[in-house]
Amino acid sequence: MILSIDLGSEVPIYQQIRDQVVEAIAGGGLVEGSPLPSTRQLAGDLGINFHTVNKAYDLLRREGLLQLNRKSGAVVRRDARSGPPEAGFGEEWGGRLRTLLAEAVAQGMDGAEVLASCAATVGGFGQGTADMRTAADEGERS
Amino acid sequence: MILSIDLGSEVPIYQQIRDQVVEAIAGGGLVEGSPLPSTRQLAGDLGINFHTVNKAYDLLRREGLLQLNRKSGAVVRRDARSGPPEAGFGEEWGGRLRTLLAEAVAQGMDGAEVLASCAATVGGFGQGTADMRTAADEGERS
Repeated sequence: MILSIDLGSEVPIYQQIRDQVVEAIAGGGLVEGSPLPSTRQLAGDLGINFHTVNKAYDLLRREGLLQLNRKSGAVVRRDARSGPPEAGFGEEWGGRLRTLLAEAVAQGMDGAEVLASCAATVGGFGQGTADMRTAADEGERS
Repeated sequence: MILSIDLGSEVPIYQQIRDQVVEAIAGGGLVEGSPLPSTRQLAGDLGINFHTVNKAYDLLRREGLLQLNRKSGAVVRRDARSGPPEAGFGEEWGGRLRTLLAEAVAQGMDGAEVLASCAATVGGFGQGTADMRTAADEGERS
């Protein structure tokens, strides 16, 4: 995956990093055991404070998706092949899903259109590359 | 609808109010033109600060779902019958949808199960009562 940060977005940077890691896991670009860059390296590549990366990694750790070790660094701990989610996840997630789908319906989006978006999104999680790079890495290589 | 606040939740109270109003609009319990309680009344009924209600109403106003007038108070401005969403809504919403669905897949939820949850949720927006009450109102009536 290629991490890219939008400094003009209303979404906090740590949340952008967290969201992109989650999407890379869902898409198969990051699998169980995949190493992530160190916080200092990623911060340097993205030109942001390393505390911001720390905050993203810590959030992913609390969500059970990352393991943080002093020695081996940040490693993906869970992916779609790790089996069903932990107890309680579905209920909490379902509440957030209800709110998000309600928003689209309240704004006048057609129910069928909402479900088509859901299906297209889940279908899009079928592919992914096998490593995690930043746009800066890409620049170095090209 | 009956507004209920969970003081023990990690979700801020203003967000809980906003989410429940959005869900009531999606469910048809609140339609275009429906009046909402005044901020002071709702705050009193729920036993919370009226600034918190103000914050929720202002968020709904910025989302285009509420109209706030000094004279007529808070009135629902948009519902599913108001036609398609404003330009740009779908793209921004689609990004949040992608993140939320990715979370379920990353945690190991089956893609088919995710889509079944989406379908059940959208299907559940078919009914609703026609007014907005708080749990306190219910208590008074019983």
